[in-house]
Amino acid sequence: MTKRVRLALIGAGRIGRSHAKTLAFQTPAAELVVISDLDADAAKVAASECRVDRWTSDVDAVMSDPSIDAVVVASSTSTHAPLIIQAAMARKDVFTEKPIALDLQATDAALDAVEAAGVRLQVGFQRRFDRGFKRAKEMIASGALGRIEYIRDAMRDPEPAPEAYIATCGGLYRDMTIHNFDNVRHLMGDEPEEVFAVGTVVVDPMFAKYGDVDTSVITIRFRNGGLASIDNSRRAGFGYDCRTEIFGSDGALWVGYTRDTPLLHLTPNGVKSDHVFWFLERFGDAYVEELKDFVASIQDNRPVSVTGDDGRTALAMAYACEASRRERGFVPLGRFARGAIPA
Amino acid sequence: MTKRVRLALIGAGRIGRSHAKTLAFQTPAAELVVISDLDADAAKVAASECRVDRWTSDVDAVMSDPSIDAVVVASSTSTHAPLIIQAAMARKDVFTEKPIALDLQATDAALDAVEAAGVRLQVGFQRRFDRGFKRAKEMIASGALGRIEYIRDAMRDPEPAPEAYIATCGGLYRDMTIHNFDNVRHLMGDEPEEVFAVGTVVVDPMFAKYGDVDTSVITIRFRNGGLASIDNSRRAGFGYDCRTEIFGSDGALWVGYTRDTPLLHLTPNGVKSDHVFWFLERFGDAYVEELKDFVASIQDNRPVSVTGDDGRTALAMAYACEASRRERGFVPLGRFARGAIPA
Amino acid sequence: MTKRVRLALIGAGRIGRSHAKTLAFQTPAAELVVISDLDADAAKVAASECRVDRWTSDVDAVMSDPSIDAVVVASSTSTHAPLIIQAAMARKDVFTEKPIALDLQATDAALDAVEAAGVRLQVGFQRRFDRGFKRAKEMIASGALGRIEYIRDAMRDPEPAPEAYIATCGGLYRDMTIHNFDNVRHLMGDEPEEVFAVGTVVVDPMFAKYGDVDTSVITIRFRNGGLASIDNSRRAGFGYDCRTEIFGSDGALWVGYTRDTPLLHLTPNGVKSDHVFWFLERFGDAYVEELKDFVASIQDNRPVSVTGDDGRTALAMAYACEASRRERGFVPLGRFARGAIPA
Amino acid sequence: MTKRVRLALIGAGRIGRSHAKTLAFQTPAAELVVISDLDADAAKVAASECRVDRWTSDVDAVMSDPSIDAVVVASSTSTHAPLIIQAAMARKDVFTEKPIALDLQATDAALDAVEAAGVRLQVGFQRRFDRGFKRAKEMIASGALGRIEYIRDAMRDPEPAPEAYIATCGGLYRDMTIHNFDNVRHLMGDEPEEVFAVGTVVVDPMFAKYGDVDTSVITIRFRNGGLASIDNSRRAGFGYDCRTEIFGSDGALWVGYTRDTPLLHLTPNGVKSDHVFWFLERFGDAYVEELKDFVASIQDNRPVSVTGDDGRTALAMAYACEASRRERGFVPLGRFARGAIPA
Repeated sequence: MTKRVRLALIGAGRIGRSHAKTLAFQTPAAELVVISDLDADAAKVAASECRVDRWTSDVDAVMSDPSIDAVVVASSTSTHAPLIIQAAMARKDVFTEKPIALDLQATDAALDAVEAAGVRLQVGFQRRFDRGFKRAKEMIASGALGRIEYIRDAMRDPEPAPEAYIATCGGLYRDMTIHNFDNVRHLMGDEPEEVFAVGTVVVDPMFAKYGDVDTSVITIRFRNGGLASIDNSRRAGFGYDCRTEIFGSDGALWVGYTRDTPLLHLTPNGVKSDHVFWFLERFGDAYVEELKDFVASIQDNRPVSVTGDDGRTALAMAYACEASRRERGFVPLGRFARGAIPA
Repeated sequence: MTKRVRLALIGAGRIGRSHAKTLAFQTPAAELVVISDLDADAAKVAASECRVDRWTSDVDAVMSDPSIDAVVVASSTSTHAPLIIQAAMARKDVFTEKPIALDLQATDAALDAVEAAGVRLQVGFQRRFDRGFKRAKEMIASGALGRIEYIRDAMRDPEPAPEAYIATCGGLYRDMTIHNFDNVRHLMGDEPEEVFAVGTVVVDPMFAKYGDVDTSVITIRFRNGGLASIDNSRRAGFGYDCRTEIFGSDGALWVGYTRDTPLLHLTPNGVKSDHVFWFLERFGDAYVEELKDFVASIQDNRPVSVTGDDGRTALAMAYACEASRRERGFVPLGRFARGAIPA
Repeated sequence: MTKRVRLALIGAGRIGRSHAKTLAFQTPAAELVVISDLDADAAKVAASECRVDRWTSDVDAVMSDPSIDAVVVASSTSTHAPLIIQAAMARKDVFTEKPIALDLQATDAALDAVEAAGVRLQVGFQRRFDRGFKRAKEMIASGALGRIEYIRDAMRDPEPAPEAYIATCGGLYRDMTIHNFDNVRHLMGDEPEEVFAVGTVVVDPMFAKYGDVDTSVITIRFRNGGLASIDNSRRAGFGYDCRTEIFGSDGALWVGYTRDTPLLHLTPNGVKSDHVFWFLERFGDAYVEELKDFVASIQDNRPVSVTGDDGRTALAMAYACEASRRERGFVPLGRFARGAIPA
Repeated sequence: MTKRVRLALIGAGRIGRSHAKTLAFQTPAAELVVISDLDADAAKVAASECRVDRWTSDVDAVMSDPSIDAVVVASSTSTHAPLIIQAAMARKDVFTEKPIALDLQATDAALDAVEAAGVRLQVGFQRRFDRGFKRAKEMIASGALGRIEYIRDAMRDPEPAPEAYIATCGGLYRDMTIHNFDNVRHLMGDEPEEVFAVGTVVVDPMFAKYGDVDTSVITIRFRNGGLASIDNSRRAGFGYDCRTEIFGSDGALWVGYTRDTPLLHLTPNGVKSDHVFWFLERFGDAYVEELKDFVASIQDNRPVSVTGDDGRTALAMAYACEASRRERGFVPLGRFARGAIPA
């Protein structure tokens, strides 16, 4: 049996505990060695859940443990970049929740450290590991759709997050649309050239307080001439809306998702079905698959599937959309290219 | 321009008026000459609606008018057979609403008259003219499904007809299932050998008063070894349920039908769509097409698409199901073959 | 019986013959008196099909016939405005195929004439009469969706029209998107404030020859703060793509349409269904309903359901999109307001 | 933390290894102590996969180990009953794959032993733990559908199992329909009174060699007057067909399942989707849930959810169907009641 990859989990919040269980119980190639959290009790609870012997509030001890091959960073967003840098300097591979950082400067610093150290960095765009989207990408790559001409990518949350979250999340584009940015770029198989963003506040005036929008439509022009459109809302009401339509010269592909269970309830007042309510239900399997893939990349000594540059480009697209909204016009992505941003 | 077929409509009730409009406004090859009804006022109203100059309560005058090529019989069921006989003797082609009669003796007398006169007789199994079922039959006939092994045919009315209707309609099998009998036989492309029927009264005790059932499952074995199953209910509650599944050695075909409009209403309490409520909505186009086809068979001097024998066999299947229910066992169709029934 | 409305049909091409049949056979309140076409033979053929006694190539004779109440204009686009003006001066109500004209000047001249004469003018936005869209509008109007926040309106033709058509049709926005402009405005129940259009040529370089695009995404901001997005393509490949999603504060409504027949074909290589191929299949009933409604507005002496201003606003939105494409920025609708355009 | 339940797995074949992984990695309340198989190597491989220290080919050693609380029986069918008896005598709770045995005598002996020992016995009808069916049962139990009148239960395998399997599996009814027997009885919430079975051989003449059928329709009458119909085939061709329709006095519920991924591929030749191919894909989660539920019943000291009597009744229904097929008539379930079968 191949040697298992020894991992530490940093950050024992909701997504951290989910990752811990995946590593402990669903990834045979992984050995979850230690769980770290600023709050030692939280770390202890998570470790107990996963039958992991070690827990700690001392992240430095984790980073300096030479027996640990890789870290999974699931702590709060502002700590991602410093932890990535620390892990890179300790020559550990890193899986980080998205985003790497809320600003490009910190992102670039993290990427610089990763490149200098030659370690792996995978960003948590879990959608790429969903069976539906994976199959869509395969079909596109096989040429079954011909040349991709237009992609429509919709995402709506069931309801707005609490104000405390909204106040610090970086705004709609960095927090939510970032998944769509990666998705359309991945499916188009090409780089965006310019973006145009329109936003509005119709769901809750609270968003305006933070200079944010709650509803938005973005148009993206790619280098190959293809177009994409992303529509977002902070509140769908009916559940989690996540659908993608891909139109090619030889056919189209719709990745739809509506029902939670395969039940139709037929009544005198109409036919009712349920709707998947939350992204964790929709992408539960994908969250497992992304960690398995990360661990496999280490075992197989191959590059990761979702790179730091993928994470950075999605953030640059968010920057460009914010600029477009301010300037009411197209914004070229080149304005936010890696060299173009002062540290 | 080819000479138009001159038709008389007999019976100006709901379905009669519908047929009249089809002939008057949607069948260019037809000329609706006169509308006849026992109730002269009803005939007059229908004629006015259709801009037809003649109406009458004297059916004999219609039958003796040599300028009339064909009659459409849409009067009450007990008059179908006598009118068919009268029309046949007057050398007129006949389109009759189903059933030819509620008993086999009257049916056979009508068929005898039609055959002796050498006129056309088409029975109103409108489902054969529905685009979905027509396409299904074409695909089966093309061999796309291979050998047909099993057919499931479901039909449920939204709610029971009034007791006055139930009391005289001939019972579930002759009144309602008769459409399914024709459908499974048509799609299987083979003759039934024996049937087994199970019925129950769970919708309304009223049905028991008439020795009838309101819910039934029938199993049919065909000569070619194929099976069919028919499930009926007098009350679906949610609308008109009409679905057919055809399983062949090389594939399956499902003729489904659910929504009335292409609307999905997404709410916090689930996703809602509507449901087609009534057979007139489901088969509106088919009712038009069957008359067009009948008129075309006269103009083109070709046999009709749905014969008197088709109508008789469906009725014989109803007889066999009634016998099966009484005898709690298989009943061979041969027991009700044309020669086997004393006049 | 109320007096029937006496109508003349002008233009016996494809859509004209369809309208003629609707008036002759499916609109009891209408009497189709005469069919006119520059090509007398075409007029004769159409009249014969519809059992109309009069046909002519002399449109002036039609216009000067005082027994004619209304005209249906289905001739080539460039003749719409002059014919509307001529009919208005003759005090006849007018139903015209869209668009009124390809330019705003001619459109305004026609509207001026109609207003001066006090006659009715209905524009052929048939989609408003589709059962699905009608029901959607009713639900929105009833408040069931709350405040409308975002509408996505998609339309794709199965394949590009011939080059001869493309060369003279006025371009994507005036020819095709004009239906979407009316649709989103109608469903939003509000006036557009500004538009932003992005177009590209990816289907066929032929479109570039005419300064046209074949694929486009438009973002519209309404006065009420709501947004809409329209995506079009001249070639879907798989059939006619026409879907609308309406998101409100209290729910969403999707007007979808995919299958042509209710058939599912299940094979070892997957499950297959068909797709509606052409707008005439999708909107066949709506084309009938719009004429019935026009005739009813005359009989009932009420205003029409789709006004000349509706037609003008849709054209102004096309102008604004063209300007936006040239200027790469938002264009306010006010720039093309009725008073703002010199004759 | 509550003490974990210590389990042994017996039988390291395909389903056994699946159960082992579930216990080892997905059931925190379970501790998988040892894996036993007649083939020691198979046991060793499975143990290694699951990081279980002990494996053995000596089932007696497992049964006599007082530290083991419960056994999961996943060995070949003929060994189920003897192992259940042995485990019961050793005072261990038992989870057994279906069926308990292929004959009622052995089944009754196992039930007798279980009852005498007072241990738990759960039978592997995984469908009860599927989210869709669980929700359906909850809705029925809540009264949302009113009185259940008719259930249609369809199941088809993608293709026939190999002849070697068919020869010894006990025939269609004991091997395959047994899942449907449990399902319709569970959903109806009532006991079957009599059954009527029709079978045919149309898929492969091989089935006739073993006195078996490959296609079957069964009608079931329940004590409450409700009806059910089950249609099976050994070969659907297109994948795994598993759908249930439940009709009640106040509404209907359809548990459908078609697509494997949420992808629609739209092409000029039609719209294609995929289909779930195999029951392991359809019921993967249910196989996990049934074991979790069994372990929870031990930890919570409560009765199991699917009892030995449930397993026995399903087998008795298979016996009755076989008799019905021979006798060509209804067969009452009473004929195969527990006391009525000589040991």
